[in-house]
Amino acid sequence: MTTLIKGIAASSGISIGKAFRLVEPVLSFEEKTVENPDAEIERFRQAVEKAKNELNILKSQTEKRLGKEQGAIFEAHLLVLSDPEFVGAVEEKIKSERKNAEAVLDETAKGFIHILEKLDNEYMRERTADIRDVTKRLMAYLLDVSVPNPGLISEEVIIVAKDLTPSDTAQLDRKFVKGFTTDIGGRTSHSAIMARSLEIPAVVGTKTATETIQDGDLLILDGLSGEVYVNPTEELLAAYKEKQKQYEKQLAEWRKLVGEPTVSSDGHRVELAANIGSPKDVKAALANGAEGVGLFRTEFLYMDKTELPSEEEQFEAYKAVLEGMKDKPVIIRTLDIGGDKELPYLSLPKELNPFLGFRAIRLCLDRTDIFRTQLRALLRASTYGKLRIMFPMVATLDEFRKAKAIFLEEKEKLQAEGVPVSDSIQLGIMVEIPSTAVLADLFAKEVDFFSIGTNDLIQYTMAADRMNERVSYLYQPYHPSILRLVKRVIDAAHNEGKWAGMCGEMAGDEKAIPLLVGLGLDEFSMSATSILKARALIKKLSKADMEQLAEKALNAATTDEVLQLVRESLN
Amino acid sequence: MTTLIKGIAASSGISIGKAFRLVEPVLSFEEKTVENPDAEIERFRQAVEKAKNELNILKSQTEKRLGKEQGAIFEAHLLVLSDPEFVGAVEEKIKSERKNAEAVLDETAKGFIHILEKLDNEYMRERTADIRDVTKRLMAYLLDVSVPNPGLISEEVIIVAKDLTPSDTAQLDRKFVKGFTTDIGGRTSHSAIMARSLEIPAVVGTKTATETIQDGDLLILDGLSGEVYVNPTEELLAAYKEKQKQYEKQLAEWRKLVGEPTVSSDGHRVELAANIGSPKDVKAALANGAEGVGLFRTEFLYMDKTELPSEEEQFEAYKAVLEGMKDKPVIIRTLDIGGDKELPYLSLPKELNPFLGFRAIRLCLDRTDIFRTQLRALLRASTYGKLRIMFPMVATLDEFRKAKAIFLEEKEKLQAEGVPVSDSIQLGIMVEIPSTAVLADLFAKEVDFFSIGTNDLIQYTMAADRMNERVSYLYQPYHPSILRLVKRVIDAAHNEGKWAGMCGEMAGDEKAIPLLVGLGLDEFSMSATSILKARALIKKLSKADMEQLAEKALNAATTDEVLQLVRESLN
Repeated sequence: MTTLIKGIAASSGISIGKAFRLVEPVLSFEEKTVENPDAEIERFRQAVEKAKNELNILKSQTEKRLGKEQGAIFEAHLLVLSDPEFVGAVEEKIKSERKNAEAVLDETAKGFIHILEKLDNEYMRERTADIRDVTKRLMAYLLDVSVPNPGLISEEVIIVAKDLTPSDTAQLDRKFVKGFTTDIGGRTSHSAIMARSLEIPAVVGTKTATETIQDGDLLILDGLSGEVYVNPTEELLAAYKEKQKQYEKQLAEWRKLVGEPTVSSDGHRVELAANIGSPKDVKAALANGAEGVGLFRTEFLYMDKTELPSEEEQFEAYKAVLEGMKDKPVIIRTLDIGGDKELPYLSLPKELNPFLGFRAIRLCLDRTDIFRTQLRALLRASTYGKLRIMFPMVATLDEFRKAKAIFLEEKEKLQAEGVPVSDSIQLGIMVEIPSTAVLADLFAKEVDFFSIGTNDLIQYTMAADRMNERVSYLYQPYHPSILRLVKRVIDAAHNEGKWAGMCGEMAGDEKAIPLLVGLGLDEFSMSATSILKARALIKKLSKADMEQLAEKALNAATTDEVLQLVRESLN
Repeated sequence: MTTLIKGIAASSGISIGKAFRLVEPVLSFEEKTVENPDAEIERFRQAVEKAKNELNILKSQTEKRLGKEQGAIFEAHLLVLSDPEFVGAVEEKIKSERKNAEAVLDETAKGFIHILEKLDNEYMRERTADIRDVTKRLMAYLLDVSVPNPGLISEEVIIVAKDLTPSDTAQLDRKFVKGFTTDIGGRTSHSAIMARSLEIPAVVGTKTATETIQDGDLLILDGLSGEVYVNPTEELLAAYKEKQKQYEKQLAEWRKLVGEPTVSSDGHRVELAANIGSPKDVKAALANGAEGVGLFRTEFLYMDKTELPSEEEQFEAYKAVLEGMKDKPVIIRTLDIGGDKELPYLSLPKELNPFLGFRAIRLCLDRTDIFRTQLRALLRASTYGKLRIMFPMVATLDEFRKAKAIFLEEKEKLQAEGVPVSDSIQLGIMVEIPSTAVLADLFAKEVDFFSIGTNDLIQYTMAADRMNERVSYLYQPYHPSILRLVKRVIDAAHNEGKWAGMCGEMAGDEKAIPLLVGLGLDEFSMSATSILKARALIKKLSKADMEQLAEKALNAATTDEVLQLVRESLN
């Protein structure tokens, strides 16, 4: 029987394929007395053998795909399994205490971890992670449940998960992953952004995907409608294969626009840029017709690490993006960490309301060591392309002035050292805090450009955490209050001869684009895969008509009224 | 030697008195073997005797002050101390296991609690709290540290605490408490609001008060400057006694303004109202010359309880306030719970960012059962005075329309039942979310009034949690962006012939008042104790001059510039 699961369409396209569950197993057990300890030891040994086999496969696969270094982690796990002190201790204890292998394994592992954690030796302390991983794997074999091994995927699959973390996606072989569906998340969650960057369909926030879908189930993943069909009928499958063909035809049409400028039907030109997360994304940005990079998130340089990235490491990354984009503009955002994005090695205190907390420019103006290193790397890279620097979470002019002063100090220092530095770096800010939108006229006198960050601007303006399901209905991009603030920012920029862009999700949203064209937005930065579709849409729009639409929308009372106006204007 | 501690001036006035530390003691101990169990048992018996004496005193004091019922809790504690099963078990175990009394007491108490918690009997389960309290008291005697007994305070003291919770302050005999100083908190924390409502000086957020101050230290608490002097010299003491006298003279001057209207030097009249938290506060509001109640927080009816308050209970409270205020207007705010204010019996899910979460009107529109009960109680009370109802945390017109529709339904139902209901109830909203300030022109067509809630409006507009020390510097009431939003709201109201008030902390702030008069604010609602001082200030201000000040401030770039303008205008 076909089951239909509904979720949020987070990345366009249609995929058909087998489900691969990336879900942590439940490893609960009861302590029992065993009659026959020898049989129990045998059961344990079999688990050890199975785990060794699996780890050997994982090791060689990973070495092939990602190199020797990445494979080494599994080597360390194999060492634990060959350690007579560990394996032997479990076997002896099964014999002497006549308890089941699960209970003894659990106790033994905890004992080892306890001892290692007390040692004044970082290397040994780090070994506790290996013991935990190996214990988990052994326990799964003992309990006969499966531990997912994303590294072992060797056929095309659709990933089914509660949610995907950056480290989950790092392990995936992108060649085989044809789609995601997750229980939680929305259009702006990590898994959604990742899916768009990989150009694969995704349906997120289904609530029930991991409950409903079994490993190997055949799935139709419709990233256009937000629907997932589990074990579809032949008829449905045929219909979707046709739909998939149609969508690919559409994509082929859009692809013709790669080298074209973005011009409305009445001749108004705007710029469509890409949001990227690492130098690797430059290729896809260009392939999708990006006229620049509107947002390079530098967080990837800082995350999944044990210490701050060096100036050199950052310089190489910034240079790679600038060179890759040739003479097209590249906006690099300075570190936007804190809030929901943590860096374990900075050990920031837990906050009651992290979204209203110590993050981004607030942290950088306090930890100027981190900030100065990043600015130096940016300045050194500036001669390799058309660099624009953008500060996130600016709430007051004082903050921008302080950040700019530090930038100028580092620039002077580098020049004094004889390092070549570009003299035409634009300095701008993200407008994502209501105070900054309200004071945009005064900011416009001092910054070179604005980039409106709608994801945060909407959640602060509506006082609603977009990740919180109970209030996410208040996350309303088309709400007249948001449109008014956006207009304020654009007008303020234009009055001072500056430009205004947008790098939030809204910039790539087909319902928002007509309004944004009408409001006079100069630059739209979005997921690379949204660019061509947006260009096709804008080519059909008349700027003059969209201005009239925007004018009406600014005086609408509710989001529903705005959406009604947009629908009417597109007909 | 005199020590000076600096904090935040949270409630005006000067107090001189002995310190009373309201700080939980550290009750850590090590398990030891004892040579002489009999001596150890004797030591335990002495602790029991001391605890009994103390509890007897607490019981009789509490009965005298608060009545039989309140004293009963100590009776229950005494019962535990007389229970041979409990005390006897400890004594036997000291003998048999030869361990120190602390370790045995701890084990025994945990054992009792473990058994009681498993019982299917609510009464017995509740006894675990008594055992915990008694064990804490005995442990403190054994370890020779003191447990604070706020109920035993019988002389004038200044309370020194990390922070004060509502249940701490409920225990205090207000007659003897002459001031607070706390380690944490700001002007809008519970302890600060409580101090202003008790009309006693308070210095909060000192960081170090509980570290620095010992029980019985002589303190000068300066709630005007935010300074606390520990063990001052005779000279300093004399100077402060003089300062105290001056301040009281000043207070006496202000008291002459109790019955007067609030009129600027050039004849512009505004209304000064009080923020209250319970019907008991009406007396102080009137004594301080309130021209109305600008904010009656109804949360007290819902907090420190085990279930929702009944309609009848609410009706009585609303009626009491309306009758108490006679024909003066009373604005009652509907339930503003959620966020940092929890109701255990509603069991709301934990939120990552509670300030951006499911609270206030959002909760009421979901739990309409709670909302309807409150609206019925309000409607029934409406004939006893001049009632105005205000909805908190409104972010969209849809929300206001829904709330109003429910209100009208309940009104019709009551009228159909023949219950008398006033026909002149004004329905307004708190403006504390940026979207609502931005859309104030459209809201003004549908509401009867606005009351600007600056505490939240500032934290959302600046995207900074005011309780978070690392970003509290961004909580800037005088920031030009805040002033612009305030102006927008006032102008929108006036354009539709409506009025605009303010019930956040800013309304009572002497630096903000000149700006607010200039911006045209109609009603200022504040702590009762701030009213006369505000009236004295406004009488000296010229509305025309303040309009010029406001005009300049709206175009200032930073908070510092605004404050400079205010200083100049007052000179």
